Amino acid sequence: MSDGPRPEMSPADHAELALLLEVASTPKPGNVDRKRDHEDLHFEQFLTGAVGARPGFEQVEAGDPIGEAFERGVRGMSQQSGGNTQFGCLLLLVPLVRAAATDRLSPDGLRAVVSETTVDDAAAFYRAFEHVDVAVGDPPEDAPNLDVRRGADAVPALRDRGLTLADVMATSADRDGNAAEWTDGFERTFAAAEAVLDDEGPVTDRLARAFLDLLAERPDTLVATQHGEERAREVSRRAAEVRDDPAAADQLAEEFLDNGINPGTTADLTAATAFVALERGVSL
Amino acid sequence: MSDGPRPEMSPADHAELALLLEVASTPKPGNVDRKRDHEDLHFEQFLTGAVGARPGFEQVEAGDPIGEAFERGVRGMSQQSGGNTQFGCLLLLVPLVRAAATDRLSPDGLRAVVSETTVDDAAAFYRAFEHVDVAVGDPPEDAPNLDVRRGADAVPALRDRGLTLADVMATSADRDGNAAEWTDGFERTFAAAEAVLDDEGPVTDRLARAFLDLLAERPDTLVATQHGEERAREVSRRAAEVRDDPAAADQLAEEFLDNGINPGTTADLTAATAFVALERGVSL
Repeated sequence: MSDGPRPEMSPADHAELALLLEVASTPKPGNVDRKRDHEDLHFEQFLTGAVGARPGFEQVEAGDPIGEAFERGVRGMSQQSGGNTQFGCLLLLVPLVRAAATDRLSPDGLRAVVSETTVDDAAAFYRAFEHVDVAVGDPPEDAPNLDVRRGADAVPALRDRGLTLADVMATSADRDGNAAEWTDGFERTFAAAEAVLDDEGPVTDRLARAFLDLLAERPDTLVATQHGEERAREVSRRAAEVRDDPAAADQLAEEFLDNGINPGTTADLTAATAFVALERGVSL
Repeated sequence: MSDGPRPEMSPADHAELALLLEVASTPKPGNVDRKRDHEDLHFEQFLTGAVGARPGFEQVEAGDPIGEAFERGVRGMSQQSGGNTQFGCLLLLVPLVRAAATDRLSPDGLRAVVSETTVDDAAAFYRAFEHVDVAVGDPPEDAPNLDVRRGADAVPALRDRGLTLADVMATSADRDGNAAEWTDGFERTFAAAEAVLDDEGPVTDRLARAFLDLLAERPDTLVATQHGEERAREVSRRAAEVRDDPAAADQLAEEFLDNGINPGTTADLTAATAFVALERGVSL
């Protein structure tokens, strides 16, 4: 047994484990966690989604195109009846796995990985929306034919404009926290991972604290999409208030659950944070 | 999304998922579950153990020898600081994966898989004990040099006697519930899986009920090894009493945890049960 590095765990292993640790971390107010299910979305469906997504991680680790690997992961993730468990997590983890597999797990490395994406990657990203219902905002006003909800139907418009997956992410970066990570070299992810590595105790407790810190730091874009920006700012204020009070955080988790507040983008960032912390040897 | 069969999940996927569903199922009195950790053995270490064990499942699915695949799984499982999370589960899952991968997932099929094991499989099984501390009883009085705690040092004695892994299991079947499955065509596993398939609700709730039924049906051999046979029989009587009372089962889980009662062999059987139920299409 060992509590040091895990030489036999590959980036794909760590990506799958990151999904599992994310959902196990509690409390993550408003999200499914070790203690809480949503009415139609259960803990065991996240476990299933993590195992199902694995082939996508293996593909991107092996050097397959990022878009294709992402679509494969989403397709595998969807082999359960809960629907969208980890779409946003995969969107962050797939480029992180590529970076780790090519020894570039740093903000600069992620910028390079993102810059290498192609129009084909963008097309595969759009196709992934056909496997599962994803909560998204409206498309840019000047590009209604690029609505991701159109799935593969939007691909001709993508090709006409020559948009890469990096370009697609850049168009959403102002209203989607995951897209913002893509365009900003995953800076928030790396900063949160450093905090997790500096923290103490079981990794799931550290990740729950990282979730609250990330949520307090910036409004969750899924909450903003679903409930408006003012509500999203209020949710962040509430997260900041309970940061150092586990009982209050637990109570906030109940409240958010009752009120349908789901800071899901912050949970995605937490999975990405878990991945970087695992790659950097956080003890288990 | 789908709630029917999972055509893209292989037996190795289902084995890994079975480990995850087992530990998530609650209450499983005396075991780590979604609601409870042991003092030095945490939920997240089981998640890590499941991901770590996966290469062993892939090996046995691909046709590698059972003993070697088992040892590989145990080595991978041990990449966390909690120690023995799922040794017994792997001992059951590895032959089940072989049976599923060769279209023989039935009691007769398992008898055939077991009968095909070799002396090399037995040697690898012994070597697996070097990766992790496992709670075991004393060896047969007439064969002290076959004590599994000797690890690889016992291999010459195994070879002298020409013992296959099936033979090794047969010598422990009277005092180890996992070895009894090996010699009995996994009859209890298959019966419990049928009950899970006939049951309703979330699969983790079904598996928690299966755990109680298995424990009520026969004393747990790990409890017998650690606390004596009378105590093991009492534990089974207590399990029978709470079978239809979730609140009482939860209370029993607290009591067993406080008293160091760990029906771990029954948890192993629950993981095996989950695997068969998954292969037979239980909905997720």
